[in-house]
Amino acid sequence: MVKPVKVGLLGLGTVGTGVVRIVEGHQSDLESQVGSPIIIEKILVQNKSKERAISIDPEKLTEDPWEIIHHPEIDVIVEVMGGIEDTKGYILEALSRGKHVVTANKDLMAMHGPEILAKAQEHQCDVLYEASVAGGIPIIRTLIEGFSSDRITKIMGIVNGTTNYILSKMSQEGAAYADVLKEAQELGYAESDPTSDVEGLDAARKMTILATLGFRANVALEDVDVKGISSVSREDILYAKRLGYEVKLLGIAERQDDFISVSVQPTMVKQSHPIASVNGVFNAVYVYGEAVGETMFYGAGAGELPTATSVVADLVAVVKNLKLGVNGKQNLLSYKIKKLKTDEQIASKYFMLLHVDDRAGVLARITQAFAEFEVSLESVLQQPNVSNPEAEIIIITHDANKAAVQKVLQAFEGMEVVKSVKSVYRVEG
Amino acid sequence: MVKPVKVGLLGLGTVGTGVVRIVEGHQSDLESQVGSPIIIEKILVQNKSKERAISIDPEKLTEDPWEIIHHPEIDVIVEVMGGIEDTKGYILEALSRGKHVVTANKDLMAMHGPEILAKAQEHQCDVLYEASVAGGIPIIRTLIEGFSSDRITKIMGIVNGTTNYILSKMSQEGAAYADVLKEAQELGYAESDPTSDVEGLDAARKMTILATLGFRANVALEDVDVKGISSVSREDILYAKRLGYEVKLLGIAERQDDFISVSVQPTMVKQSHPIASVNGVFNAVYVYGEAVGETMFYGAGAGELPTATSVVADLVAVVKNLKLGVNGKQNLLSYKIKKLKTDEQIASKYFMLLHVDDRAGVLARITQAFAEFEVSLESVLQQPNVSNPEAEIIIITHDANKAAVQKVLQAFEGMEVVKSVKSVYRVEG
Repeated sequence: MVKPVKVGLLGLGTVGTGVVRIVEGHQSDLESQVGSPIIIEKILVQNKSKERAISIDPEKLTEDPWEIIHHPEIDVIVEVMGGIEDTKGYILEALSRGKHVVTANKDLMAMHGPEILAKAQEHQCDVLYEASVAGGIPIIRTLIEGFSSDRITKIMGIVNGTTNYILSKMSQEGAAYADVLKEAQELGYAESDPTSDVEGLDAARKMTILATLGFRANVALEDVDVKGISSVSREDILYAKRLGYEVKLLGIAERQDDFISVSVQPTMVKQSHPIASVNGVFNAVYVYGEAVGETMFYGAGAGELPTATSVVADLVAVVKNLKLGVNGKQNLLSYKIKKLKTDEQIASKYFMLLHVDDRAGVLARITQAFAEFEVSLESVLQQPNVSNPEAEIIIITHDANKAAVQKVLQAFEGMEVVKSVKSVYRVEG
Repeated sequence: MVKPVKVGLLGLGTVGTGVVRIVEGHQSDLESQVGSPIIIEKILVQNKSKERAISIDPEKLTEDPWEIIHHPEIDVIVEVMGGIEDTKGYILEALSRGKHVVTANKDLMAMHGPEILAKAQEHQCDVLYEASVAGGIPIIRTLIEGFSSDRITKIMGIVNGTTNYILSKMSQEGAAYADVLKEAQELGYAESDPTSDVEGLDAARKMTILATLGFRANVALEDVDVKGISSVSREDILYAKRLGYEVKLLGIAERQDDFISVSVQPTMVKQSHPIASVNGVFNAVYVYGEAVGETMFYGAGAGELPTATSVVADLVAVVKNLKLGVNGKQNLLSYKIKKLKTDEQIASKYFMLLHVDDRAGVLARITQAFAEFEVSLESVLQQPNVSNPEAEIIIITHDANKAAVQKVLQAFEGMEVVKSVKSVYRVEG
């Protein structure tokens, strides 16, 4: 009989349960692919006596992580417990003992990915983390292998399902942010503390990982300029739709020559762009390569089975490498020096909605401020505001650098005729 | 100095030129990834003295394929010349000499894939063919690796750019098939003899490859039920849009338990389905897995650089395997027995447009024919036809089996009140 490959599972929450279901339910398919049975030998849980959705031999459960990390027969650690510092300790120790690691932990990979990959390299171990970004979408292997021959210049991602659900609902039903957030919490699509999702932090972690892979340079979480969706108003979305745009929380990583920028912000996306029609809890990653042109990858961004699919696909890859004796050879270590763009180098179109005094000469003063900082305008619309004596001015710029746009906004602050800058959005597509 | 990997290129048309551009243009990036230079050593051309878009050392060109196949220093053959029987001979001979093969040849892989993969296995060689389906979209490695842990139940593809361009134009501009085809020919999007594209044969070859990979069973080209777009009328598209559908040439591969079916046909796709908004020459492949749920992969389906991106990504994979000494270990050979669904087992919704006598009792007779063969109806719309004394009946069925629908259509042939069945479409989404 062929010797089975033994797996230690850290965590038995939603994704862990999915991993058990798939490994056990697809046992014969998996064995056909890798040539030996895959057995989940031990599972780390917080409480052994808790009731569970699946039946598991109680002998397999442990509350002691080191029992798994130090287990002599376990070849592969599958980490789906989350957390950062403790978890990092377990993973580094497992690697130093020659165990391979599959993880779904975006926080860990975003913050300590380079250190973990370096340790893996040192011990000739695999570290695979497909499930850490965009759940069931195999975007990480696509960036590593599918586009290995190309030079990627732009990655745009809807990589947080909660915020995409909220923005889609606001767009489809004209509903207000607070109401949709509450509904999403009731449906379990948003956490009771939604900060990490709605303020863009979760998306920023995922973009850190994607940018690092896409540009082959170690991007850090601090490099990502982050803005969330909590200030997106129903009115903004209505204006966007009227002009042919949808508002999406986009992670955008861009490269020009050797300089890169990474950001997360609510963005107005032209309705004809493929990413504009990604709705609900779905995720999508749009990748532009110099040779391949436009591509997009769409699917479930979270959930028990989609995420577990990616985890088990990584496990299959580790086991194939084990059979071939080539673990640790295909980790993608960054080989480029990171150079970040300055605000002067970051260019995009912008949408602005201003409330101004409704009198002669105001539009001239506004447009002159743009001219002064060399921001050229694609379209300008002035209209009376029905509910008060101010006028509304809607502006879409041509590509302008971020620093210049900041200067224009500062100039507006000193202008008495500008009552308020209601909103400013990056524009794509 | 590290020994370079030497490549023999069969063909220097559009894709071959792209391969040369990428291998030469991205040389240092490629070397960073694989650890040694990749050199295109010899190139098979039809005419050495022809003028070319790129400058190439004339010493590298040859008109003799065997000079490449038998070249002692060439490790990898990249086949982008097309053709079937001769090309198959070159590839089998190259494999039997231990050379690895990267090919973009969908015709060859659809017709002789299993034989070629078996020969590769025998000689421990890689055969990679990412570029054979959907150009720059890395769908083949996604099916092999990304979803290795899942069970795929459905693959729907817009895998022919020419027909998608034609249908998109007909939909957007209300234009007639013949006019758009002529325009596509002038723009170079359609061949002067467009048969292979517009009759669905090209799509059928690609679906043969995708179904074989997705279901791990050797599907043959003859197993694919094929219908092209030449009978799609402007009116059909108008009706579709009015009901909330787009007409797309879809390849559909489905599996239920162990039984599969593969078809290519113009299909009415609900506008809310992600594949409905794939327009122009773009390709997309929608994959449904039991665990991962809905996913879709979108990008350029053809063109020099997108296709060459996939070819060179495969070349990178072969060279990495060479370095690791593991070539031929990751070819996916089918391990399931193919069982095809009968027409009784193939179920889908259908759209029908009938012209009937405009008099009492006709609708009752029509709907009774459906009832007789147990085809239940989702919606029925009868309206006068403005241009003649007949009435139009538009029917959308619930899921119905193909055999029953055929019987209903036969029954209509014998009914005097049914003047004509103007169109019948499969419905998805």
